[in-house]
Amino acid sequence: MDYAAESLKLHYEWKGKLEVTPRAAVDSKEALSLAYTPGVAQPCLEIQKDVNKSYELTRRWNTVAVVTDGTAVLGLGDIGPEAGMPVMEGKCVLFKAFGDVDAIPLCVRSKDVDDIVNTVALLAGSFGGVNLEDISAPRCFEIEQKLKERCDIPIFHDDQHGTAVITLAGLMNALKLVGKKIEDVKIVTSGAGAAGIAIIKLMMSMGLKNVIMTDRKGAIYEGREGLNPIKEEIAAVTNRNMEKGTLAEVIKGADVFVGVSAPGVLTKEMVATMAKDAIIFACANPTPEIFPDEAKAAGAAVVSTGRSDFPNQVNNVLAFPGIFRGALDVRASDINDEMKIAAARAIASLVSDEELNANYILPAAFDSRLKDRVAEAVAEAARKSGVARI
Amino acid sequence: MDYAAESLKLHYEWKGKLEVTPRAAVDSKEALSLAYTPGVAQPCLEIQKDVNKSYELTRRWNTVAVVTDGTAVLGLGDIGPEAGMPVMEGKCVLFKAFGDVDAIPLCVRSKDVDDIVNTVALLAGSFGGVNLEDISAPRCFEIEQKLKERCDIPIFHDDQHGTAVITLAGLMNALKLVGKKIEDVKIVTSGAGAAGIAIIKLMMSMGLKNVIMTDRKGAIYEGREGLNPIKEEIAAVTNRNMEKGTLAEVIKGADVFVGVSAPGVLTKEMVATMAKDAIIFACANPTPEIFPDEAKAAGAAVVSTGRSDFPNQVNNVLAFPGIFRGALDVRASDINDEMKIAAARAIASLVSDEELNANYILPAAFDSRLKDRVAEAVAEAARKSGVARI
Repeated sequence: MDYAAESLKLHYEWKGKLEVTPRAAVDSKEALSLAYTPGVAQPCLEIQKDVNKSYELTRRWNTVAVVTDGTAVLGLGDIGPEAGMPVMEGKCVLFKAFGDVDAIPLCVRSKDVDDIVNTVALLAGSFGGVNLEDISAPRCFEIEQKLKERCDIPIFHDDQHGTAVITLAGLMNALKLVGKKIEDVKIVTSGAGAAGIAIIKLMMSMGLKNVIMTDRKGAIYEGREGLNPIKEEIAAVTNRNMEKGTLAEVIKGADVFVGVSAPGVLTKEMVATMAKDAIIFACANPTPEIFPDEAKAAGAAVVSTGRSDFPNQVNNVLAFPGIFRGALDVRASDINDEMKIAAARAIASLVSDEELNANYILPAAFDSRLKDRVAEAVAEAARKSGVARI
Repeated sequence: MDYAAESLKLHYEWKGKLEVTPRAAVDSKEALSLAYTPGVAQPCLEIQKDVNKSYELTRRWNTVAVVTDGTAVLGLGDIGPEAGMPVMEGKCVLFKAFGDVDAIPLCVRSKDVDDIVNTVALLAGSFGGVNLEDISAPRCFEIEQKLKERCDIPIFHDDQHGTAVITLAGLMNALKLVGKKIEDVKIVTSGAGAAGIAIIKLMMSMGLKNVIMTDRKGAIYEGREGLNPIKEEIAAVTNRNMEKGTLAEVIKGADVFVGVSAPGVLTKEMVATMAKDAIIFACANPTPEIFPDEAKAAGAAVVSTGRSDFPNQVNNVLAFPGIFRGALDVRASDINDEMKIAAARAIASLVSDEELNANYILPAAFDSRLKDRVAEAVAEAARKSGVARI
């Protein structure tokens, strides 16, 4: 199917993929007096007395804002806020369909970090959480960090953390399959953008020690000239042997490759130099860093991509609906590493030991157990880590 | 019925009066590829090429933001943004039920004019219009003015302009009933807040010349000490005879009283001093400036209030759904005076000459003709005044 043409045609028919639907009737004078004036004054007064009642008397308990500035939409780059809206509406549809979450798309007409932070922070009382989406690096880090400091609701940049959760889930099962431990493996990345850094940070919080991130200039190491602040931070905690050189040089002997970069950057020659039973995440979209058949021919044991037409798809829909469902269910003030790791474990656990094989390390997007399993694990982790409010 | 108690109980049951509903299915891999990636890239690219396509390929064409800062909610005053949310959700329910408009409630956590303006202006690409609600005067004037300058979509403060449109509609029919013309009558107001000023401005643009606004200190006249900038502006165009004194003094001989102030400020003694066939709008809520039976006993010909349990209710739901429906239908860049007057005429026209009587100068809120009649009139006025974009 020509997805581009067919999708465009459907978008003209849909005229928007979302609708706002009343849950209260206003079909009589009496109904109007209860849903609106004069009756509505009473719930207002209750919230004025105790602002937490906004989670009981309005839709806040189930509502998330999906926010973009349109600077890094899909692989299309900086296309502007209005042009990002079809993706945001789609994301909101997924929130409802896969997480039972009411999501509202907001496209911000500014690329200024403080403008975006102010806008979202000032609206935080209307929502139970915020999903940041398709905001370019390194601005996305600063925006997320500042919002986390200012807001009392979860701020979650899905391009970073959703991807990190699923990659970690896939890694857990892949390592189980080849009989290795995260503490012992060497991981090399291609790409040190928002997703790459989030993936590595989350894996390190799970015990990963030996990791080298590479960008277009090769291995990132402490003291390399021209590093931006985020890469400097990464350089300080990764690559402790200070290996230098190209991806081809530093990947030798690596157990795992994590690619969130560009088509074709991983060659079969490079894969051949990796350790036995190598695990490959080749998530560049739509064309991966290496195609699965090529990687396998060169000796890889497990290959995962971002595509739905190959096995082991790293698909964010596995994670964000359940993560927000769980966070909202306990009125969490944050989505922290404990909650992300719990989500990754829950996703990984949906593939049983009997089912686990090189072509099935991640559950399917339509696995109906996902929402509840992830949500319960995330809620439990929120309680244990002290960010749950109910 | 105890509306307060019953409404509170219902709000706990509803757990929010709105829901976000998908219009596109994502129940199969293929459906997902069309509503979301990879297919969704195509509508994004179309909008990038021509930003007006956002009105065809996303829900923008039918979506309005309902924005408050919680500073003047109902008659409750400054109760805070979260506490204003039950009213905003209710307003959004009315938008859908009476205007087929998708409305999204946003409560801003700031009372600073520029904060609110920036927040709304930066989100203007996500919406086809903005309804400002329950924002205290005089800040509401500045916020509306600044937003009108910065935004390319209609900005409409319903507490001002919705009320003005309906009061004007009621006045048109009341004057017809008593055989007077707007050019000839003397109008005196009690209250010079947001609604009062908007009512008088709109009536003046319809030909009203002889008008005195009063506040707690009595008649407003040019040069009165301590006037704020808005009242100064009003003083410069009203009360050209420079009448001074209390409401009781200046109301003598007036044909029309417009009250948007406080309970009981209009006495039957004052009504008795008005001109023959006096028309009274006593819109203080829930207790009017004077009760209808009292006003009639003192000689008033027509009495209108804000209450649904008396005839001739000035109820904003008569106007805003159709006004926004019409503005959205022609992708208007503004809601201007021409459109407001057209809305008032359309509302007034729903009461036929045969039906018109002292207890029926305004149609009922549930008159099923309202939306289309008002929308068509508003759209036509938008076209004629050059603010329609399709």
